[in-house]
Amino acid sequence: MIEKLLIANRGEIAVRIIRTCKEMGIQTVAVYSTADRQSLHVQLADESVCIGGPLANDSYLNMNAIIQAACNTGCDAIHPGFGFLSENSQFARLVIQCGLIWVGPSPDIIDMLGNKSAARKMMKEAGVPVIPGSKEVVETVEQGKDIASRIGYPVMIKASNGGGGRGMRVVCNEEEFETQYTNAKAEAKACFGDDDVYLEKLIENPKHIEVQVIGDQHGNVIHLYERDCSFQRRHQKMIEEAPCHILKKDVRQHLFEDALKACRHVGYNSVGTIEFLLDKHGNYYFMEMNTRIQVEHPITEMICGVDLIKLQLKVAEGLKLPYRQEDIHQNGYALECRINAEDMNRDFAPTPGKITFMHLPGGRGVRVDSAMYSGCEISPYYDSMILKLITFAPTRLECIKKMRAALSEVIIDGISTNTKFHYYVLHSKEFIEGRYDTSFCETFIKELKDNGSIV
Amino acid sequence: MIEKLLIANRGEIAVRIIRTCKEMGIQTVAVYSTADRQSLHVQLADESVCIGGPLANDSYLNMNAIIQAACNTGCDAIHPGFGFLSENSQFARLVIQCGLIWVGPSPDIIDMLGNKSAARKMMKEAGVPVIPGSKEVVETVEQGKDIASRIGYPVMIKASNGGGGRGMRVVCNEEEFETQYTNAKAEAKACFGDDDVYLEKLIENPKHIEVQVIGDQHGNVIHLYERDCSFQRRHQKMIEEAPCHILKKDVRQHLFEDALKACRHVGYNSVGTIEFLLDKHGNYYFMEMNTRIQVEHPITEMICGVDLIKLQLKVAEGLKLPYRQEDIHQNGYALECRINAEDMNRDFAPTPGKITFMHLPGGRGVRVDSAMYSGCEISPYYDSMILKLITFAPTRLECIKKMRAALSEVIIDGISTNTKFHYYVLHSKEFIEGRYDTSFCETFIKELKDNGSIV
Repeated sequence: MIEKLLIANRGEIAVRIIRTCKEMGIQTVAVYSTADRQSLHVQLADESVCIGGPLANDSYLNMNAIIQAACNTGCDAIHPGFGFLSENSQFARLVIQCGLIWVGPSPDIIDMLGNKSAARKMMKEAGVPVIPGSKEVVETVEQGKDIASRIGYPVMIKASNGGGGRGMRVVCNEEEFETQYTNAKAEAKACFGDDDVYLEKLIENPKHIEVQVIGDQHGNVIHLYERDCSFQRRHQKMIEEAPCHILKKDVRQHLFEDALKACRHVGYNSVGTIEFLLDKHGNYYFMEMNTRIQVEHPITEMICGVDLIKLQLKVAEGLKLPYRQEDIHQNGYALECRINAEDMNRDFAPTPGKITFMHLPGGRGVRVDSAMYSGCEISPYYDSMILKLITFAPTRLECIKKMRAALSEVIIDGISTNTKFHYYVLHSKEFIEGRYDTSFCETFIKELKDNGSIV
Repeated sequence: MIEKLLIANRGEIAVRIIRTCKEMGIQTVAVYSTADRQSLHVQLADESVCIGGPLANDSYLNMNAIIQAACNTGCDAIHPGFGFLSENSQFARLVIQCGLIWVGPSPDIIDMLGNKSAARKMMKEAGVPVIPGSKEVVETVEQGKDIASRIGYPVMIKASNGGGGRGMRVVCNEEEFETQYTNAKAEAKACFGDDDVYLEKLIENPKHIEVQVIGDQHGNVIHLYERDCSFQRRHQKMIEEAPCHILKKDVRQHLFEDALKACRHVGYNSVGTIEFLLDKHGNYYFMEMNTRIQVEHPITEMICGVDLIKLQLKVAEGLKLPYRQEDIHQNGYALECRINAEDMNRDFAPTPGKITFMHLPGGRGVRVDSAMYSGCEISPYYDSMILKLITFAPTRLECIKKMRAALSEVIIDGISTNTKFHYYVLHSKEFIEGRYDTSFCETFIKELKDNGSIV
């Protein structure tokens, strides 16, 4: 049993974890960088340890300092939160080697799912649909054209060892193929020192749908329904909802079955999320699996009535899942808006600074997950997300109305935030209809610029 | 349909009503006294009107000023909240005469239920158990002794036109009767100019159990289960829970049936609460009916998944109740702690003043209903309740643990509050077991004084 937990994170997720620990009677140790001395997670934890300077590498990514803090304070477990070291298998191994409980899946599972092409291979083995494409590296233009015509244009050429959009090219038809293939290889070589590329079908304007899962160390695994996270700006989620408004019943059932298949195949033993792309025809494809708690976990908690952090701690302790699949019922709708310290009139540039005054909404069906307080400093060193506003209601429309009301109540003085942008989105026809895809956010920003709502 | 609502109240209940109006698309007009210029309800409403000086008689009880404000701003309805004019039938009639919608039951119903002996008579007619006692005024000592021996000692002698504990005497046996009867009559005469007294059986150390009801203008009425409000200091509720932990299934069912009987008998047509005393043997007796929304309504909203203010507005508009009894399901447990600006070390004396800093809890299953903000002034003119902290969880024990965690997170600087007192209560064996009655709070305060936890 975990008696004392070190939380290797900061901000709202550290506060979120402390709250559940207080309920469970688990003592908490916060770690903090010198920039975070006054942070709420430090104030709310039972103990706290400074682990280094403001740069993440010196503190929140400083494995030795964190593990030393855990040992010095007599912790028996480490929760990594999200971001930072949460998907670092080396850190997970180090934690376990030091005799501490790692609150996450086994390091080998993190490794398997962290490598994108290995994960893709594993999902294929498990029988989960992956995006059609070449099995291996594409060696010649002719071979590539053959594969492309088989899977159908448009296709993506991707660097095998790439990431972050580098070494990636969209090819719309056979005429373009050779040029783009050559360009992609050259960029891959320049960026990653390796010109291996492979092919994938381009899924145009998909919805981003993900399935929340949790497994224990006894082979049990359940899903907790899906989230629609298609409202993204530059691949950063901004608004999430659960369940997805437009998912067809039979597609949904297959999605859950495939998510469970994937988990069973790898012996998944913690909370995790399987992300899929859903195309216009109702086909979905495995994208990646996140082996940690996610930012948007609260909306699943709202519709399923469970505490995911509590469950995560229990399975990390080695306990059996207290639920079978048939115990998990979905009820109502939940929405989450990520309020960021950023200026929508300066291309959403971060706006660190001091919050001189704030008032946050409350009341029925409104959940606030935040580490802010009147007078706190928003640091330039870390992520600009400062508040998760979550609403819950019996129907989607009521949930949207509740979120509008909650957004209109937010007062944050001293810095700019994207609160008003959310308010605009929640009044847009596309969002209300729920049919928006991952391209909608950019389209909508353009619209707002065109009509002068933002500059 | 209500398009613009004047809220004839202040503080957290005004904020609570504004929140639901924002969701429903109803415009709001706040009224305020000169002491409340900076209050949150004024800041959150669409419009606001100053209606007089800080004394309640000059502002929140100033019927003409309030109705004039409603007319001048083009409101079509008035919500009275609780306290102030919420149970004043004269005000309700005036509102209706001015062509406005009164958000409450018909004035005649307020009259009937406001008079305690009339209400008692009506409940007897409806077949609802009332406390055994004399039907009419007790004219002689002998007559009183006869009735007392029939209903059994201890009994209460009460002034027929009394209230507030004056002209009230407990009689434990026949020997004491004559003296106490004479004393009671003398005090009644002195206080109320009338020495009529009647007899009631004394219910020793009861539980205070109340049933939430709502009726529409079409004869439909439903109950929304019960609340246990037995934790009271000097007849002021301090902690409420729903449902009641120790109520037996069959007693509970009868209680609901009797509550509905009572409502049907009077044609009740708004939200209301029927308060009962429950004795140690499982017998319950009608105490009074409150013809308004109550402070503790959020715990019912949590376990039933409804918005009582929304329902109250809809039935005031003349709409049919959107639920039948069988649509209302109870799920989980909810607790409410009333955080007051008062000093438990000075006999709970009010502590008005400026809140220099505050941090309120949040997260899953925690609801905050408050009108506070960092820097706000707590006025000496009004009720000392400044925050309702509500927790919700699948089981009662989890709900208690969540409340402890939430209480431990509250930071209110600048004034004293009873937050720590609540924390003590939630760790007491009696509270945890749920068997506490209305006498427990005083006993517990004595215990805390004896062991030095409070002075």
